Amino acid sequence: MTDIKPPVFDDVLSARETIAPYLKRTPLLNHPLLSSHLGADVWVKHENHLATGAFKVRGGVNFVAGLTDEERRRGLLCVTRGNHGQSIAFAGRQFGARVVIVVPEGNNEEKNAAMQALGGELVVHGRDFDEACAHGEQLWRECGYRNAHAANEPKVIAGVGTYALEIFETLPDPDYVFVPIGLGSGICGVCLVAQHFNSRATIIGVQAEQAPAVVRTFREGRDVRTETADTFADGLATRTSAELTMSIMRKRVDEMVLVSEDELAEAVRTLWRTTHNLAEGAGAAAFAAAQKLATRIAGKKVVVILSGGNLDTPTLRKIFADA
Amino acid sequence: MTDIKPPVFDDVLSARETIAPYLKRTPLLNHPLLSSHLGADVWVKHENHLATGAFKVRGGVNFVAGLTDEERRRGLLCVTRGNHGQSIAFAGRQFGARVVIVVPEGNNEEKNAAMQALGGELVVHGRDFDEACAHGEQLWRECGYRNAHAANEPKVIAGVGTYALEIFETLPDPDYVFVPIGLGSGICGVCLVAQHFNSRATIIGVQAEQAPAVVRTFREGRDVRTETADTFADGLATRTSAELTMSIMRKRVDEMVLVSEDELAEAVRTLWRTTHNLAEGAGAAAFAAAQKLATRIAGKKVVVILSGGNLDTPTLRKIFADA
Repeated sequence: MTDIKPPVFDDVLSARETIAPYLKRTPLLNHPLLSSHLGADVWVKHENHLATGAFKVRGGVNFVAGLTDEERRRGLLCVTRGNHGQSIAFAGRQFGARVVIVVPEGNNEEKNAAMQALGGELVVHGRDFDEACAHGEQLWRECGYRNAHAANEPKVIAGVGTYALEIFETLPDPDYVFVPIGLGSGICGVCLVAQHFNSRATIIGVQAEQAPAVVRTFREGRDVRTETADTFADGLATRTSAELTMSIMRKRVDEMVLVSEDELAEAVRTLWRTTHNLAEGAGAAAFAAAQKLATRIAGKKVVVILSGGNLDTPTLRKIFADA
Repeated sequence: MTDIKPPVFDDVLSARETIAPYLKRTPLLNHPLLSSHLGADVWVKHENHLATGAFKVRGGVNFVAGLTDEERRRGLLCVTRGNHGQSIAFAGRQFGARVVIVVPEGNNEEKNAAMQALGGELVVHGRDFDEACAHGEQLWRECGYRNAHAANEPKVIAGVGTYALEIFETLPDPDYVFVPIGLGSGICGVCLVAQHFNSRATIIGVQAEQAPAVVRTFREGRDVRTETADTFADGLATRTSAELTMSIMRKRVDEMVLVSEDELAEAVRTLWRTTHNLAEGAGAAAFAAAQKLATRIAGKKVVVILSGGNLDTPTLRKIFADA
């Protein structure tokens, strides 16, 4: 790990050139009804409008674009619950790379179907994500696949950072930027770009109360791992942090906020009612945190990252039935 | 009516210039999972990604941009259930025009809130849409507002036609294009652009079985009005056709299809499950019709217009509860 060179702003710029033929800019929209609901000037970055429905594909395309033909032929391996796998499969299809995707048993059927429709070869193994990871490492060693890690990859961070570039170019002076954190690739991109623009924005990372490993590691200054990551926001459901992203976050993230399952569900419903965009749990986390800090951010210019919309149907039904 | 000059392709081109500063292109996405579900090569035009969540705003911006300062000062009047009103309110805000919106009693609260958040002045009057229209006409005569009609306006048709331009420039040779029809502004844009490109695409209009006025007028060659328009797809809920759009449709639309309420609801669910885009009823109608003709269009290159995503929460809940 320690020999990985962290990405810098120029890597984000060059990632933009790389991904441009494959992925269009996403909208940064000011939603009047959402703004009046929150009492602030709210801008939503719509990463749910990407072809795979989530921001990660920017990183996947930038990563696979940078591999050699030999690496693409040998194949890529990733372990995922969904969005990262869709991202790598999408990129693999664009560049003719074989993509093997390890998921745990009982993984969401809709996400599995989406990854397979993109050409990913699915391997179902292990009772949970960590067991799937262990199997992934074994395959990686035995079969010579190139490992596609969701966060400890400079090209992934630089790639997802392109959404931050799109934000700061359009709206150079936000007061607050709220960003959901799984392992932190997204918020690292925001950090690199905000630093380049000398932004005075307060950058706030968001995790679920039920999966607080990154927040606790950030706050406590030691490597915290949790036993469970029991949140319906599977994009946030990590039990550990990642070294590379943590080192970048420590330099620029101002603070971190935890949100409850109820707050996440309420945020999904509010975003739907006021913008008619349906966010997945992680996609609603930034807004949930903004809602939590409503008094403090009143009247301010606030950006929330709607990182993805890949909510499966049973979860959708449950969130709206509970309302 | 008869003195209105129908729009031509050049009007669509010029509309594109006009709306470009206010509205970004929307994606035309090939969704592999949706394609494999239907057994055809399906491309979705994502008009649900626009700021107001529906295609009509293209027409609203083009229309209001073309008014005089005097007309904008006097104010615009429209009668609507939602999307047309949001469109005119959005455009009015951009160009500093006062916008008065008449809705019937009991109109959807979420849509009313969205129109008001955009600065529209709401007038609630009449037991149904037709009574609201009558009241709108009275206000229009008494107060000197400029009438903003949803379909009998060449600038509206040319404006919404810009989505068709974006489609045919990206994908010049579709075999089928499925388009939902309320009063027909959207499909008229498709007709003008397809004619210009000499496209051999079969253009298919779609309405709800419960609100078939345009389809019956088209098929029967006489002006058919229905007593009711009882579909949850409120974007399709018209009891009459419009003269200007009908004259354009007759020249290029190949056929029309009616879909049931169940088929619409199933299409909403399928689009969600396979693309994670949540369509309103009218937004799912094109795909519902494609599904209905699945055998005939197997293996073909098919474009479906996802015209909007403004589904209110109670309807969303009902559609997914029934699944």
